[in-house]
Amino acid sequence: MTRTVEMVEVGPRDGLQNEATIVSTADKVALIDHAIAAGSRRIEAASFVHPKRVPQMADAEDVIARLPDRKDVTYIGLCLNKRSVLRVVATRDGNKRGVDEAGCVAVASDAFGLRNQGQTIDQCVRENREMIRFAKAEGLKAQVTIATAFGCPFEGPVPVETVLRIASELAEEEPLEIALADTIGVGVPGQVEELFGRLRELLPETIAMRAHFHDTRNTGIANIWAALGAGVDVIDASLGGLGGCPFAPGAAGNVATEDAAYMLSRSGVETGLDLDKLLTASQWLERVMGKPLPSKLAKAGDFVAQGTDNDG
Amino acid sequence: MTRTVEMVEVGPRDGLQNEATIVSTADKVALIDHAIAAGSRRIEAASFVHPKRVPQMADAEDVIARLPDRKDVTYIGLCLNKRSVLRVVATRDGNKRGVDEAGCVAVASDAFGLRNQGQTIDQCVRENREMIRFAKAEGLKAQVTIATAFGCPFEGPVPVETVLRIASELAEEEPLEIALADTIGVGVPGQVEELFGRLRELLPETIAMRAHFHDTRNTGIANIWAALGAGVDVIDASLGGLGGCPFAPGAAGNVATEDAAYMLSRSGVETGLDLDKLLTASQWLERVMGKPLPSKLAKAGDFVAQGTDNDG
Repeated sequence: MTRTVEMVEVGPRDGLQNEATIVSTADKVALIDHAIAAGSRRIEAASFVHPKRVPQMADAEDVIARLPDRKDVTYIGLCLNKRSVLRVVATRDGNKRGVDEAGCVAVASDAFGLRNQGQTIDQCVRENREMIRFAKAEGLKAQVTIATAFGCPFEGPVPVETVLRIASELAEEEPLEIALADTIGVGVPGQVEELFGRLRELLPETIAMRAHFHDTRNTGIANIWAALGAGVDVIDASLGGLGGCPFAPGAAGNVATEDAAYMLSRSGVETGLDLDKLLTASQWLERVMGKPLPSKLAKAGDFVAQGTDNDG
Repeated sequence: MTRTVEMVEVGPRDGLQNEATIVSTADKVALIDHAIAAGSRRIEAASFVHPKRVPQMADAEDVIARLPDRKDVTYIGLCLNKRSVLRVVATRDGNKRGVDEAGCVAVASDAFGLRNQGQTIDQCVRENREMIRFAKAEGLKAQVTIATAFGCPFEGPVPVETVLRIASELAEEEPLEIALADTIGVGVPGQVEELFGRLRELLPETIAMRAHFHDTRNTGIANIWAALGAGVDVIDASLGGLGGCPFAPGAAGNVATEDAAYMLSRSGVETGLDLDKLLTASQWLERVMGKPLPSKLAKAGDFVAQGTDNDG
C-alpha cells in the first residue's frame, strides 16, 4: 500500500519571516534552489505583506524575479489582502514567469484576525473570497489557509464549528485546496483527525486538504501522520524547522522538512524528496542563519548502520 | 470515546543511565517522589546492571531501600541477566518492600546483544526465559523488553520476523507484558503500526504490549500515537526527555513524559498524569542536571490563552 503525499516547502516564507536577521535576496533564491535540488516542486517563495509589517519580506518581488523558470515547479506567493494579490499579479506583467499561485489566509479567531490582518473572521472571509475570485480571474491558481484553526494565542481553544463554517464559505469560491494551520503549535493528533475528518466530509472532492503544523510542543510529526490518516493530500514543512527560537515560547518553527521526509519515506509514503539532499540544504541553511536549527534529523542524521567490523 | 493508557516513568533508569554526571541517591529518590506526585504509578526505579558497566546505577539497592512504601505504585528493577534478578529478589529480603517487578531485556540483533549483554539473540532469549520463570517463582511480577526492535546501530534494519520469533518464544513464559523498544530512535509510525499490529495478533490476550521510544529523529510522539492505534496498552517515557545529548548523534533521550502527556490528554486519552506537576518536576530535574533537557513542552509550556485584554 504505497501512498503519495505532496510536500510544500514553506521555509522561504513562513520559515524566514519570523527570523530577526534579514537574509539577502541571493540567499533566499539559493534556499529555493536548494529545495528544488532536493525534490521540492511546490514552494512558498515569498509573502506579499506590507514591508513595514514584515521587513524580511520587503524584497518579495526581487526574489520572484530571480527564480529559475522551471515548468515543473509551482511558486506560491502569500497574500493577506487584495493589495497582496495585485502585487502577485504584477509579478507576471510583461510576460514574466512570476508567481504561479496565490496563497490566501483566512483566520479562525477574531482576536488573531484583528492583530494579524486587522480584520474579524467575517471580514476576512469576505476579503479572501474576493481575493480567490480575483486571482483566478487573473489566471493564477488560488488556495486558502485557515490560520489558528487548532487554537488562538489570545482566545484559546477554537470551536470546530467555527473552522468548518469558515471552510464552507471559502469552499464556495472553489479554491484548489483549503489548508488548516496550527499557527502556534498547540494541536494534537486527536484534534487533527477530528478537524480534517470533518473537513473532508464537508468539502467537495475537487478541493484538496493541506495541513500546516508548527512543532512548538513536539506534536508536529505526529500531527502529520494523523493528517494523512484523515485524508490530507498536501503537507507544509520548512527546511531545518526554520522559523522559531527554541527559547521563545510560542515562536517555534514549522515542522522540519527533513524530519517529515524521514518519517514519511520510512513509513512507505512517497514524497519525491531526497533525504541526503535535504540534509545538505539544511546544513547550508544553518550556516546562512548562523545558528543551529530545530530539525532533529539534521543533528542525528539518517539511519545508517555503523557495521559490525568496528568493535568500538 | 475516552481511552486510557498506562504510562511508565523510566527517567530514573533509562533517563539517568546515559548521563555522565553521577546523580546522588537522594536526588534519584526525589525524582521518583516528583514522578509519583505528578501521577506516575509505575516507575522504572533502577537498573541492576554491574556497576562497572553503568556507574550511574551503582546505588540501585540504596535507591530501592529509600523509596516510599506506596501500595498504589509499582517499582520496576531492570534486569539484564539472572544475577540481576537475584539482586532484585534480595531487595525484598527480611520483609522489606523492595522491587515489585523485574523488567527483563532481550535483544533483536546479535551485534547489539553481544555488545550490550555479551549474548547472541538466542542466548539472550534463553537467559530471559529463565529470568522470567525465576522472578515469577520468587513472587515478583515479570515483563520483558525486546531492545533494538526497530533497528540496530550496528546491523541496520531488523527483520520483522526476527522480532516476532523472539516475542513468540518469550511469550511461552507468560510475562505480564512484552515491550518493543526503539533503542536508538530510528522507528517511524508506519513501522510501529506493522510491528505492534503483528505482535498483537501473535500474543495471547493475557499479555499486554508496551512501547518504548527514543526521540532521536523527532518521531517519538508520532510513534506513541501510532502505537495506541495498533493496540499498545502501556507507554514508556522519561521526565524532561532525559537521557540524551542533543549534540551526540544516536544518544538522544527517551520521549519526554510531559510531551507525551500533553499530546495524549488533549487527544482525549487518559493517562492519570497532571501536566502542571510534570512541568514542575521537569524544571526541578533541569536544575539537578544543570542543563536544558530535550522536552519541548518544558520550553513552550501548556496551551494557555493570553487573553484579549492585553493588546501587546
